[in-house]
Order: sequence, then C-alpha cells, then structure tokens
Amino acid sequence: MDLKEYQKCSRIARGLEKAELVLKNAKIVNVFTREIIEGDIAITDGIIAGIGRFQGNTEKDLSGKYVCPGFIDSHLHLESTLVTPAELVTVASRHGTTTFIVDPHESANVSGLAGIDYILDQTADVKANVFVMMPSCVPATAIDDNGCMLTAEDMAPYLEEKRILGLGEVMDYLSVVNGDELMHRKLELFSDKIRDGHAPFLSEEDLQAYAMAGISTDHECSTFDYAMMERRNGMTVHIREGSAARNLEAIVGGLVSRHMDGEGFCFCTDDKHIEDIEREGHIDHNVRKSIALGMDPVSAIRMATIQAANCYGLKGLGAVAPGYQADLVVFEDLKSIHVEEVYHKGCLIDQNEEIVIKKCPDELKNTVRTGTFSKEDLRLESSDGMFHVLKMEAGQITTKMETLRQSDGACEFYADDCYQKIAVVERHKATGKVGVGVVKGFGIRGGAIASSVSHDSHNLIVIGDNDEDMELAVQELIRTQGGYTIVADHRVFDTLELPVMGLMSDAGFRYSNTKLKTMIEKAHSMGVPEGIAPFITLSFMALPVIPEVRVTPRGIYDVVKGEFYQF
Amino acid sequence: MDLKEYQKCSRIARGLEKAELVLKNAKIVNVFTREIIEGDIAITDGIIAGIGRFQGNTEKDLSGKYVCPGFIDSHLHLESTLVTPAELVTVASRHGTTTFIVDPHESANVSGLAGIDYILDQTADVKANVFVMMPSCVPATAIDDNGCMLTAEDMAPYLEEKRILGLGEVMDYLSVVNGDELMHRKLELFSDKIRDGHAPFLSEEDLQAYAMAGISTDHECSTFDYAMMERRNGMTVHIREGSAARNLEAIVGGLVSRHMDGEGFCFCTDDKHIEDIEREGHIDHNVRKSIALGMDPVSAIRMATIQAANCYGLKGLGAVAPGYQADLVVFEDLKSIHVEEVYHKGCLIDQNEEIVIKKCPDELKNTVRTGTFSKEDLRLESSDGMFHVLKMEAGQITTKMETLRQSDGACEFYADDCYQKIAVVERHKATGKVGVGVVKGFGIRGGAIASSVSHDSHNLIVIGDNDEDMELAVQELIRTQGGYTIVADHRVFDTLELPVMGLMSDAGFRYSNTKLKTMIEKAHSMGVPEGIAPFITLSFMALPVIPEVRVTPRGIYDVVKGEFYQF
Repeated sequence: MDLKEYQKCSRIARGLEKAELVLKNAKIVNVFTREIIEGDIAITDGIIAGIGRFQGNTEKDLSGKYVCPGFIDSHLHLESTLVTPAELVTVASRHGTTTFIVDPHESANVSGLAGIDYILDQTADVKANVFVMMPSCVPATAIDDNGCMLTAEDMAPYLEEKRILGLGEVMDYLSVVNGDELMHRKLELFSDKIRDGHAPFLSEEDLQAYAMAGISTDHECSTFDYAMMERRNGMTVHIREGSAARNLEAIVGGLVSRHMDGEGFCFCTDDKHIEDIEREGHIDHNVRKSIALGMDPVSAIRMATIQAANCYGLKGLGAVAPGYQADLVVFEDLKSIHVEEVYHKGCLIDQNEEIVIKKCPDELKNTVRTGTFSKEDLRLESSDGMFHVLKMEAGQITTKMETLRQSDGACEFYADDCYQKIAVVERHKATGKVGVGVVKGFGIRGGAIASSVSHDSHNLIVIGDNDEDMELAVQELIRTQGGYTIVADHRVFDTLELPVMGLMSDAGFRYSNTKLKTMIEKAHSMGVPEGIAPFITLSFMALPVIPEVRVTPRGIYDVVKGEFYQF
Repeated sequence: MDLKEYQKCSRIARGLEKAELVLKNAKIVNVFTREIIEGDIAITDGIIAGIGRFQGNTEKDLSGKYVCPGFIDSHLHLESTLVTPAELVTVASRHGTTTFIVDPHESANVSGLAGIDYILDQTADVKANVFVMMPSCVPATAIDDNGCMLTAEDMAPYLEEKRILGLGEVMDYLSVVNGDELMHRKLELFSDKIRDGHAPFLSEEDLQAYAMAGISTDHECSTFDYAMMERRNGMTVHIREGSAARNLEAIVGGLVSRHMDGEGFCFCTDDKHIEDIEREGHIDHNVRKSIALGMDPVSAIRMATIQAANCYGLKGLGAVAPGYQADLVVFEDLKSIHVEEVYHKGCLIDQNEEIVIKKCPDELKNTVRTGTFSKEDLRLESSDGMFHVLKMEAGQITTKMETLRQSDGACEFYADDCYQKIAVVERHKATGKVGVGVVKGFGIRGGAIASSVSHDSHNLIVIGDNDEDMELAVQELIRTQGGYTIVADHRVFDTLELPVMGLMSDAGFRYSNTKLKTMIEKAHSMGVPEGIAPFITLSFMALPVIPEVRVTPRGIYDVVKGEFYQF
C-alpha cells in the first residue's frame, strides 16, 4: 500500500478513524499462533487494518462464525478444468480459494508464449489473486511432439511481470541432474524466484541432485515415505487432490499417524475438473478431508493458507492479520468447514453472479493440425505375438508395464474385455505421426473415447475396441478443433467442444458440465471402471514423464528405461 | 553454484564421483523433518553434495557425533563487542555461529556511511557469512545528538550490495505509525527485503500499525505474552540473550510451558561482549539454555538455524542437506551441545588460529569532539528540590522513573549510597551540550565510570558520586578518543581505549578482555551491584527509545511521554 493508504490503515488500527467495513465478533483463526481469537476485523481498501474492537461505516455481525484466511491452491493448471480461466477461478473462489498459483503448461505446449499471455490476460481482472509460474518444460521432454519450444531467452522478458512467481514444474529431471545446459539456463534465470518441481519416484540419490538444482517444491508425491524424503531435502510437498490423482489420504494419513503438524506441506489440485469442484469443493475439500483423517483443523488451514504463502513468498496473503489482504473464508464449524461466505480484498464474493466469458484470440481457436489420418494408421502388429501393455490403475495416473501374448498367438492385436487399443495422433505440425499400443484397465467396449487434452503435448489421444470407432473419434476432434468425444456403435455419441487451444470450452461451464456428466456416465456404461476418470485419466496416458509406460506419437515409451519399445 | 559446480555436485550425489571430503557415520540433525539421520555428509567446493553413503578423497569418521547446521545470530551489533568486527566473528564462529546478521547502527551513528563501509570491509573475507542490515534510524530519534544523518537517498546505492539483507531495526516507532514521510521512504526502499523491528512494549494497537508497515521482526521482546502478541501479527521474534538484556528464560520458558515448538522464533545476541562470548558461548549458549529450560533440542537447533535462515530468506544456509553450504557444528551430546568442531564452507575452523586485525582508516579513529567541558557543566539543581530519577534494574536495560526529594530538602543534588549523578556529554559536533540527572541502582561510590559507547548516539556517558571524578573520567575519554574508564579516588584507575569510532579497540580482544575483567571487578568493588554490567548497562542509559526514562545531552527524557523533564 502507498503512504496515504498506510496512514489511513494505521489510524484505523489505532482507533483514530472508522474502518470501511468491520466484521464483528468473529472467531478468527490466527495461523501464526494457532489460536482462535474472538474479535472484530477492521477492513479498509481491501486490507485488514486491525484485529480487536473496532467501529466501521458498515458493520456485519459474525457472532458464532469462524473466519480464516482465503485458501491458496499452490499448483494448478487452469486449462485442465476445461473451462476458460476466469470461470474456473470464479467457481473455485466460491469455495474459498482466493489465490491460485497456475502453471499454463498446457497452453504453452500448444501455443507457446501466446498461450501464456492468454492465461495472464484472462486472469488479469478476476476477483482472486492469480499468479503464474513460467512453464519450464515446453516440450516436456526431447521425445515429445508438441506445438512450441520455450527457451530461457523466450522466458526472460517475463521476469518483469509481477504475477510471474518463478519457474513451473520441472519435469525433465534427467536434464536437471545431468546438468543439461539449456535446462540449467532456465533454472538460473529464475534463481531469485521459486522453481517448482515434478519429481515422482526419483531415487534418493537423484532426488538429492534434483533438489540441489534449487527446485524447492513437488506435487507428484503419492506416498508419505516419499514425502518425507522430499522434506529431508528441504522441499515443500504440495499435497495433491485433483480429479484423477488423489494423494491426500496417503500423505495426510502419514502426517497424522506420526503426530506431525504439516509444516512444509501445502495443498494443490493440479488438475481438477470443474464438475468435481462443484461437487466436492476445491482447496476447502482438501482441508475437510485432512480434518476427517484426524488432522487438527488449524494445521489443515495452515497448509491451505500461510504455508503456501510462505512457500511462494507471497507477502500479505495467507493470514488474517493487520496489513494482510482481506481474503477471508467464513464458516460455522471448525470440523466441517462448510464455506458460507468468501471475501476477496474485503468484498463479499457473490455466489450467484453471472460469469462473463472473455473473448479468446482467433489464433488460439484453430490449433488442431494433423497429417492425413485413417484407420490404417491404427494397425498394431507384433512380429513375435508379444505386446507391451500400458496397465492403468484406479485412482492413479501412474501405470504399470505388462506384456501380453494373445491366447491364439496372433501377431495382429485385437481387443477383448480386458485389452483395448490406445493411440496418439500428432496434431500440431501435421507430421502424420501416430503411436499405437495396448491398454489394460480402461475397459471400454463397443466404441472409442478420444481427447485433444493429453498431457503435456496435447496431441489427440484415443482408446477404443475397434479401429473404425477410433478413427471416427479422431475425425470428430479434427472437425471440432479439439474436444472430448465418445463414439459408440459407429456413431458419435456426443462431443464436448474444446476449441480454445483444444483444451478449453468457451461455452460456459454449465454447458460443459451438463454435457460432460452425460458423457462420463456413457463412458462408464461402456465399461470404464469406477476409479478411472474417463477423460482425465485418459489425458495422462501420453505423458512420458510419469512411470512406468506411456504412448506417444512416436510409439510405446518405457519411462523408467527412457526408451521406446519396438514391436 | 555455477553449472560446472552443479554438475560435479550432482555426480557426487549420485555416487558417480568421489567427494572432496566425507564426514562419515554422523548423527545428522535434519531441521526439516526433525529427524536424526545416521549417515555420511559428502562435501565439495564448500557445498554439501549429498547425505547417505559416500566415498571421499578425504574421509573423517564422526561415529558417535552429532552434526547440525552452523548457528545463525539473527541480530547483533558487532561494535558492541568492543573488538574489531573480524575478531568478534572469529571468536563467535569457534562457538558454532557461522552466520551473522549485523546492524552497523553504532558505526553509522558515529561515522555515517563510512562506518557502514568499515563493517562491510572488515567482514568481507572472514570465515563466516556476514550479512548487513542498513541502519534505519541514524539518528535514532529527532531528539538525538549523533554524528550523522542517513536518509533513504543515502541508502539507495546499498540495495545492490549482495550482503545487505534489508533495513535495520526501526526504532522510531512513532514515525512509523504516524506515517512520517522520511521514515516511510526508507521502509519503501527496502520493501522487497527484510525490515527489522525494535518494538518494546508497544500497545496492541500500535504494534498492529507497526507490523502493518512491513516490519517483520523484533528482538526487544522481553515477555512471553508480548512475544505472542508479536507472533499474532506475523512477526518473527528474535529471542535475545546478550550481555545486558537476557530475554531467553522468559520467552523460551513460555514456549515450553505452552508446548510450543518455537516456530516463528529465532535467536540473537544483539549486544554481547566478547568476554561473555568466551565464557558462556554465543548462539550455542542460547541453544543450551533453551534445552535446559525444557525445550526439545531439535526445536532449539531449528531456532538457531533454519528458522533464522527462512526469516531472512537466506537460501542455502541453515540446514545439513544437499546444496546447502557446508556450515556445520559437531558435538557429542544432544542435550549439552558442547561444540567440538565447526566447519565453514566445508573447512574446519581452527580454534587457535591467530587473528589478524585489519587496519582501520584514520578518519574513523579521531571521532571524539566535545565542546569546552568542565565540572561546572555537571551541576544539578532543582528549583523545588524535586529530582527525576532514572532507576536501573538488575538484568534489564529498561528503567523506571522515580522522583526524589532529598531528606534535607536541598535544591542542589548530592550523591549518597542510593543516588548518584549521571551525565551525557555531546561528542560529535562540539556543541557543548551536557545533560545531567540522577540515577538509582548503579550504586557507585568513591569515583566515576564513563564510556564513549552510549547507544545510540555514542556521546560520552558518565556516572559518579562526585563531579571531580566525573570530570576526570570525561577528560580521559577525550584524551584516548574513546573508551571505557574508571576513576577512583580522583585518579584514573584504568582505561580501555576504544579508538575506532569510540566504539572498538584495535588492540586485540585478549588485551581488551584482560583489561575489562579488572575494570569490571573494580566497578563492582565500588558498589555496582551484580546484575548491572558496569559498562554495558551504562551504555543504554542514553538511549531515548527504551522506556521509561533516559538521559541525553539535552537533559532527562521521559520515553513514555516523549518529552524532556524540566528541573
């Protein structure tokens, strides 16, 4: 705040002047001392001017209510929610999340700096604090076929942007630990800022080398033991509870059983579908779930607030204290934390306000460019009748590698109840590359499911039990320039169009949600088991940085060995 | 570290290359997880490359020994130790303190920027990490008579200096909370850095306004309740255990009784005499004392290490973990923490190495410039026979205000066993100002004690029971251009010369300590009670920002009311 604002706030703090707004008689969660303090919160110009007893031009009685700081999502990809950025932020803010640390990794992989500018622009005037991490791995790895490449030199001008907090999740850990010069130029560029990690299942030795490069966070941690290994290296663990990856129970369960207070841990959603946000909440869900697992409520709130603010050096956020921004969550019960009201900069968030969708530049709406493609590209043969299988597991985005010999020893793969076909079609530079493999655990019968959202390169990914339906699904996504689609019995069942970079809908989240709900039900009715989110889990199957095995436009990739399988 | 260094460290971490030095089989205190981890510490180029099992060109077995991070003194004034900066740092480093956050407030008050440059220069190549806070209040208040004035404009060029961490303790809280423009220009200048506080006994309202100005630490806290009030505002409390002010028992006692782990607290010495450092230790003493009070050893170590590093944003300091600087303390027992070995940047500190004293610029060695001065200036009369008394208290640098009417109702003050005279003589600009008052609790009989160290303006301060001896003491300090002196029975008993800005000796600490020991004994034999450090406690009696009453060259000052007393 400037001097005039300070002088005013100081006078209010000292009882010499009335505040604009006073929230009276609240039970205030002090995240510094872990106390619950009964008192008034004086607010002026969006800032908390004092805690104690105050008079205000407007006064609102909060007797019986708790007030805690607005929640912080330490790491998320706005694109993954399928709606435009402002919609996601608005919907999540109604659940108490007032600060979002977003990594426009998906947009950047499709449209480069224009994609990042889109995210910055769309979130410039939302009723929340949106910070941006500069995507570090565009493309994610050297074997990716994505839309753009970002170098340290491309990123340098963004250092001046106040909302850029640092370097986004560094996925390519081999380039890090091997001291690759291009990677380290990016790390060096952000050496005074935060460098986020992405480090699932590294060995202890590799993790030490990785942390030593200055990478200080990770959100890919799915076991408590691994979380402790990261903590030993001084890393902050972002406990992820998204639509597909749900790590909270394992990690918070470990904290609770060890009587640890969650220091060094924050919450994130990473990739959470707006439908799930509406159903179960956003970071408030993480807080509630932690409390249900036995964590002390104030510790859970601290992970959702001040600890995240400290992790990212966000001064003035994450606490209900003088000088802090008046981002507040009001609720009645400290166990259930049912969010009743949310304030951003001292203004009550209207739970029913209509969301205006900002226009997207045309260049970002026509991004699906495949080579010639037909079902011939989906043929899958093995000279010895052996097939490498990508085995999906419920509740996980990791996969296991298996091998398959079909009972009749056939060299051409055919689908059955257990095994189906998975393919990825390059869609940025019309290279014509198509990778095909076998998948287990997805269970689809009588059709195909396809998506233009497929991390991190966002090529077209499709799973099906017959080549005709798979071809149709891909053609449908080319027609709509991106989306989710389901083909059943040789007809398009339905398509959710995602024309913004092939990642997001600009038709409004109600439209998307309604459509998606039907489509998800349909997918499950076609055999996709509970525990597998038909589109979101699918969207990770091309991501060559998550173990153990993936499919890319270049073929089946062994993540552990770092090599492609030959059939 | 640069890329080449990183590549080397990474190879060591991954077991592909030998480390320079491996400390084997240590019990390593992990300040992140609070675990004690048995293993080796691999060190190369002064950096910890890995924790685990390693081979090194040099290996040293630490079986049975604990290793924790080097200690951090979060706030100190090097000048207050009376010796040159490098000596203090060297002596304290032998006790395990490897990082010093110094505020050259005293040097700046005498010699301005030249004084700050002196501290930076003298500590540029010591075997420790020395960071500097830019003195914020030079002079400390508008009523001070010091040597220089520093404005925000004077400070601006120092923003570029990597060792400048922020703005030093902001004492003039009224200028802060009243929104004084000159003060806020300084606060604004350091808004991206740390702004240290100095906020004893503010009301809750004032403290909120003070914290709201972005001031995030305080080391003046002497009660647990006040510490909690600061914590509620998000401030970090530096628990001070110096030569005169000893706040550790009160604060750590409170933490222990409330089962709190010390989060948000660090340790500092503020002003600690080298004699006391040699006798009881430095920050290691704070750690030991906290453990003796019942604090968990790892929590105490955390306050001395990572919590201080986090408070000041010191990346790579405060932990024994990969990528951290190899500043280490070795000890055998986790309760007694008797420091056996100290490493700085991976090199063992030689406990017996001779300390070379760097030359001081001549301009900083002739700084005592008084006006004409004689004992006539020490006359003290009151028209109504009432005298305001500055009452000193054992173990405190705060004072109480009392009034005195002499038993015979005399209008001219005379000393007795209970009351003596205190005077401060301006010595920077030869203004001739002399303030005289009555002191209780110092107890000196048969002479005078004087010092050119008198916070924060460092004029000449003297207490005595007769004007002749007081005059002689002042004349002696003019002759030596600064020092501590004792006059007994009309003769100089002894003088410790402090020619460097009137604050420091350049004769070596052994010389100073020997002399000081005799002088302190003499002072106590003349009546100064235990619990009053004859020179250090004296040196605070002119500091007009510590309640309740002080003496300055302008007279007796009521700190609480902010006004001078008239006799």
